[in-house]
Amino acid sequence: MGEFGLIKHLTKDIKNVQPSTKKGVGDDCAVMDFGAKKVLMTTDMLLEGIHFNLEYVPLKHLGYKAAVVNFSDVYAMNGTPTQITVSLGVSKRFSVEQLEELYSGIRLACERYGVDLVGGDTCASMTGLTISITCLGTAAAKDIVYRNGAKLNDLICVSGNLGTAYMGLQLLERERLVWEPLSNSPLKGESISAFEGKEYLLERQLKPEARRDILEALRKAGVKPTAMMDVSDGLSSELMHICSQSGVGCCVYEDKLPIDFQAAALAEEMNLNIVTCALNGGEDYELLFTCSLDDYEKLIPIDDLYIIGHITKPEYGCNLIGRNGEELALKAQGWNAFNE
Amino acid sequence: MGEFGLIKHLTKDIKNVQPSTKKGVGDDCAVMDFGAKKVLMTTDMLLEGIHFNLEYVPLKHLGYKAAVVNFSDVYAMNGTPTQITVSLGVSKRFSVEQLEELYSGIRLACERYGVDLVGGDTCASMTGLTISITCLGTAAAKDIVYRNGAKLNDLICVSGNLGTAYMGLQLLERERLVWEPLSNSPLKGESISAFEGKEYLLERQLKPEARRDILEALRKAGVKPTAMMDVSDGLSSELMHICSQSGVGCCVYEDKLPIDFQAAALAEEMNLNIVTCALNGGEDYELLFTCSLDDYEKLIPIDDLYIIGHITKPEYGCNLIGRNGEELALKAQGWNAFNE
Repeated sequence: MGEFGLIKHLTKDIKNVQPSTKKGVGDDCAVMDFGAKKVLMTTDMLLEGIHFNLEYVPLKHLGYKAAVVNFSDVYAMNGTPTQITVSLGVSKRFSVEQLEELYSGIRLACERYGVDLVGGDTCASMTGLTISITCLGTAAAKDIVYRNGAKLNDLICVSGNLGTAYMGLQLLERERLVWEPLSNSPLKGESISAFEGKEYLLERQLKPEARRDILEALRKAGVKPTAMMDVSDGLSSELMHICSQSGVGCCVYEDKLPIDFQAAALAEEMNLNIVTCALNGGEDYELLFTCSLDDYEKLIPIDDLYIIGHITKPEYGCNLIGRNGEELALKAQGWNAFNE
Repeated sequence: MGEFGLIKHLTKDIKNVQPSTKKGVGDDCAVMDFGAKKVLMTTDMLLEGIHFNLEYVPLKHLGYKAAVVNFSDVYAMNGTPTQITVSLGVSKRFSVEQLEELYSGIRLACERYGVDLVGGDTCASMTGLTISITCLGTAAAKDIVYRNGAKLNDLICVSGNLGTAYMGLQLLERERLVWEPLSNSPLKGESISAFEGKEYLLERQLKPEARRDILEALRKAGVKPTAMMDVSDGLSSELMHICSQSGVGCCVYEDKLPIDFQAAALAEEMNLNIVTCALNGGEDYELLFTCSLDDYEKLIPIDDLYIIGHITKPEYGCNLIGRNGEELALKAQGWNAFNE
């Protein structure tokens, strides 16, 4: 059934009764109206062995990432993250110092993004580390961007580059397998020569940033996206969410996909198809959005922003146009932790 | 260090920067100001093997409880719960039907308390079931009751009865040990004769309610508590929180503690001291609050509400006066999952 199918199944006939609930299940954030501004709320859970491997993920980075992925969800609604709560399940093998490290990462992220850590819960666990973070944010009602607003002929844009976080993970996994027989925790702390020149890939995997800068640039340029998401599960999967919720189809071009050269080089080295990684790799936390064709001129000057395709009629489906003009239907295979 | 010490340690120099954050870490809920009403936010994580044992906890009850304990935190601020997000970590041994059962309990609780389920995250886990729920609520600024408002000579009140949920747990554990050698999951589904006449104890453990009715009664009577908490870790522990945050001491009377007769009978049968259970048992989710001596007459007519002592000068400490007049210092040994 997969994660999305399961969530859909479990929440299919939920009815909201609070007048303050403007948007419940089904987008990056829930939206509540408590007065002058709308309140956004989102949550993410990270489980050891599923979402992270402590053999090569430093705890401070993990904390930073756990917070940032929530901020990214709020930005993906065109909102501003304001508060988080942090719940931790911690087994006995973790020392106070290690939890401090984890927390220092969470707090660094909060500091950088101006978010307050306002509560949480910490409890023992039988095995491993569990991190559950919930984030609130605000937005003026007129600014909020949902997933369901994409219109025929809208441009499809994405920030940064795609597949890079996935290649960072491949690199870490490869080194882990090389080093595992020799030592217990070789990848912790020290830098290793195998990573030289590939630091950017590691950073994208271990310490992603949320693209607040892109939203600021769009605001300055006077552009409001019609639909938006962050790329957490992979471009294909997110595009299909936007299209199905907006009742449209889409067409994206292989040669327009922003790909980092280090990621491409490593993919080549590891016999991976970098386009597949870009489409399905996930964890990039870039912003994917659609906006009116009328905004084309305003988008061009924005740094680190790429127009990769356009919205079509729904009967066209979701397709990738290859370098030689061939048409491939997108599949939402994604980086789906639930299926692994 | 214990859970409270650890949280305190990890959050000791957190500084809030958002103008909307009115109260961060350190109470049942965080308080945010987004406009006309204050927004309350609280979170609780439940881990299999630590907080619940699926050998005798039906999933529907577990879902119900996981939601209600969050509502209870919002009521403990004199607020109204409005929205929750639910994050689940689920291992492969759970079927879709079982998750539906869990969700049906969560949704029943939402229905009964008029709360909207507005989002969440569901992911695979390596082992067991993890439930993390975050709840938002609202309150007018003037209505919010913190833990730090108790004043000298205030009355100490508690709703319902204490130690009953703990005795329910003892009963379930005893039956589990009896049945374990005979069958695989004897306690699921069917009622067992050993529980006859003790259903109330089970209900208190498996399906607690949040005391919204008590708040309504207080509002009708025109009483606003000066400090309030819900009893989740045990009366002693909660009293010490209120006293330390309010800079006061307290004195409670053994013969005033509300104790259920079924719980007392079972304690007798199991050679447990019911007063110890009432002080340290936890999970009762009753409301503990202080209010002005001037409100005494207004409190008396309220059903299921008990005055158990009064607030003293801080140098007196936190003490229990026994049936024979002896004075015992309270200890926050609580029902502390972190230390087990």
